[in-house]
Amino acid sequence: MAAETVARQVMDDAQALSTPFIRALAALLRADDTYGVWEDKPDSELLGDYVVTAEARRQIPIIGDPDPDQVERVEKFYRAVGLALERETGLMATPMMSLHYEGFGRVIVTTGKLVVLARSLRDVHRFGFSSLAALAEAGTKLVEEARREMAAYPQVARA
Amino acid sequence: MAAETVARQVMDDAQALSTPFIRALAALLRADDTYGVWEDKPDSELLGDYVVTAEARRQIPIIGDPDPDQVERVEKFYRAVGLALERETGLMATPMMSLHYEGFGRVIVTTGKLVVLARSLRDVHRFGFSSLAALAEAGTKLVEEARREMAAYPQVARA
Repeated sequence: MAAETVARQVMDDAQALSTPFIRALAALLRADDTYGVWEDKPDSELLGDYVVTAEARRQIPIIGDPDPDQVERVEKFYRAVGLALERETGLMATPMMSLHYEGFGRVIVTTGKLVVLARSLRDVHRFGFSSLAALAEAGTKLVEEARREMAAYPQVARA
Repeated sequence: MAAETVARQVMDDAQALSTPFIRALAALLRADDTYGVWEDKPDSELLGDYVVTAEARRQIPIIGDPDPDQVERVEKFYRAVGLALERETGLMATPMMSLHYEGFGRVIVTTGKLVVLARSLRDVHRFGFSSLAALAEAGTKLVEEARREMAAYPQVARA
């Protein structure tokens, strides 16, 4: 089990930060920085809110309503999937999220008339990843899944 | 202009009430009637909130936030499109609506991996139709549009 965990943890932080998904997510976070006060902050710091260590997770109640910042964080995560996809394929990818205030719901990403990604959301108040690498892997996996869908139905993605 | 209006107004209320779209919408409204207090009410009365006469519309401010009832009304309208579509085609049609509190947003209906309908929403606080016939026509038109999309990409609709 421990060996498996080590074997899967192939990415270090520098590699994670250079993935198209993380670059897209960092770009979206910086887009909110109207006055440039985060200009000197590294991406790893901006992305810090996405990292929830096991220790920190234990402090979060099992049941809870997500606050607006947390909802926005999840939205940006899926917008980054869309943006990375768009940068790679040239086709506009539109995320759409529908969330109950208790923190469950659904998110889909569409390209043209194709649903390239669909996920149920729950426990949004606990949304987070154990490390930057885990965040990068999760996002990159979704981008790849979406890209496979686009490849499977290219004419619908362009419709 | 007057002749055109008359020519287009082919449906009377009885015909409107028998369209698959209106029957689906009435069924959704009745699904909320847990205690059966609306059992004796005709569909035309239940659907009354969807009818906004020109006179009534003039009373609604141009700019305004929709109240929760109004948002639910719009949601049910698109859920009825999905339900009518499902009854006709046997394929599950899932609506998804994302709305800003100021009353603009987007709604899509998906079947399988296909976006069968996509609409921008605005002025949701003014959502309504001049008559039951106009409501039936608007809903029926959307059902037909969605069905054409399903016919165009049948394998994606079943994916």
